[in-house]
Amino acid sequence: MKLIRYGQPGQEKPGVLLGEQQVDVSAFGEDYTETFFATDGLKRLAAFVEAHAGQLPAVAAGERLGAPVARPSKIVCVGLNYADHARETGATPPPEPVLFFKSTTALVGPNDDITIPKNSVKTDWEVELAVVIGKRASYVEEADALDYVAGYTLHNDVSEREFQLERSGTWDKGKGCDTFAPVGPFLATPDEVGDVDNLRLWLSVNGQMMQDGTTANLIFRIPFLVSYISQFMTLLPGDIISTGTPAGVGLGFNPPVYLKPGDVVELGIDGLGTSRQELKAYVKR
Amino acid sequence: MKLIRYGQPGQEKPGVLLGEQQVDVSAFGEDYTETFFATDGLKRLAAFVEAHAGQLPAVAAGERLGAPVARPSKIVCVGLNYADHARETGATPPPEPVLFFKSTTALVGPNDDITIPKNSVKTDWEVELAVVIGKRASYVEEADALDYVAGYTLHNDVSEREFQLERSGTWDKGKGCDTFAPVGPFLATPDEVGDVDNLRLWLSVNGQMMQDGTTANLIFRIPFLVSYISQFMTLLPGDIISTGTPAGVGLGFNPPVYLKPGDVVELGIDGLGTSRQELKAYVKR
Repeated sequence: MKLIRYGQPGQEKPGVLLGEQQVDVSAFGEDYTETFFATDGLKRLAAFVEAHAGQLPAVAAGERLGAPVARPSKIVCVGLNYADHARETGATPPPEPVLFFKSTTALVGPNDDITIPKNSVKTDWEVELAVVIGKRASYVEEADALDYVAGYTLHNDVSEREFQLERSGTWDKGKGCDTFAPVGPFLATPDEVGDVDNLRLWLSVNGQMMQDGTTANLIFRIPFLVSYISQFMTLLPGDIISTGTPAGVGLGFNPPVYLKPGDVVELGIDGLGTSRQELKAYVKR
Repeated sequence: MKLIRYGQPGQEKPGVLLGEQQVDVSAFGEDYTETFFATDGLKRLAAFVEAHAGQLPAVAAGERLGAPVARPSKIVCVGLNYADHARETGATPPPEPVLFFKSTTALVGPNDDITIPKNSVKTDWEVELAVVIGKRASYVEEADALDYVAGYTLHNDVSEREFQLERSGTWDKGKGCDTFAPVGPFLATPDEVGDVDNLRLWLSVNGQMMQDGTTANLIFRIPFLVSYISQFMTLLPGDIISTGTPAGVGLGFNPPVYLKPGDVVELGIDGLGTSRQELKAYVKR
């Protein structure tokens, strides 16, 4: 199953993708929230879709897509999880996963604009495979970890490098600016994805390919990450884990290359679709 | 006004403190959530309490207190914000605030047990003044920042020092374990608190005073912090900012002193009450 949410920001309605067609499942009566995942929502939704096959209304063309899950309790990110990316940033691959949080207020739809924060000069891109948690996870064993995964989605872990690295303290400051987490287009359940350890992921800026990697090169794989993170905090249904980015970010160029208003970022992962964001300057609202 | 939440975990009901008496305001019909604060809930609640003066039922003796706000979108913490604490940890006071996040799953009531995480050997205490945000805050000016504050509360920023400092990456790993954020006993609106820049705050372990400081020694004060954080992310109504801890944490002793099962931590801030937590070993549930 492939889940979408569509409509205006804050008023998204649930939908599913049937082949190429987006259909509305508002009649199911639930958004894709913590409660949805916690109450076997995926199974119930699948039954609903099957029971209403051929009768579900199509989503009107041109509707905005939101993130495919409602605002989660947390977005946990893994840093330096591809050796080539660690190298380009000058960091040594860590002996265990580097974790940080993205403010959940950063979450936006897959094709929404990215706002360059006020006073930012180093806004950068990062294509990532994101995992959505399906049930409460605390001290999960690696062997059981995939039972806790609801599905996978595409994430651009947008990062302000000056805020992240040069402004005292942890990385969190440069990761959670508004619009810095475009997620989607859809959440795919694991059966839709095939071998999650062998997916191509790529990102281009203004049509020029910048990142072109494969999840085969993840240093720490998904079962390990779910288990590992669950040693430090309880993961809730709907929570997002973003698994890190391969080489090719702006920070890694010599000299570094950062995003500016008007730039267009496109990204994709095999089987998880593509997304596209245009960069905008911050304007006081 | 002083707001409380009471009842079993996950089923807390709203109340207020009238003098020493806890009264139930379930009839108001709202929990203290993002929506409550965003829709002028404090003003509406004050009118409700006034309209029902003398008629509100008392909370039964012995009820558990929950955190005085429902789970927020984020708990943003400020590190090294008292010069004496920075010194004891061996850190230089930072040129600008150090920020990190606490997983919101860490939030518990003021007198709940603290669970020492599995594999933890360095669980530590930190008494802190916490600020609760009253309205959506993005790029707020320092001069206007107090308009965005709903009130103040007491927070024990429980920290696992090995997870925080010796396990690769950011501090977040050692800050968000379950039960690591006892908050309350109550949320006090600013009019109840007096001079927030001159509050004594203290913490004892097994009756022995460990921290005894004053908010007069904050390096970065509350209006600056609200304004500063709002440059990096949007703060939502109900969000918690924890402003840092004075000297006297376990990490600062030579040799360091950490918490063990059976220890009792008590803490307080002038005008914001006291809280008490007993340490428990992790037990698989």
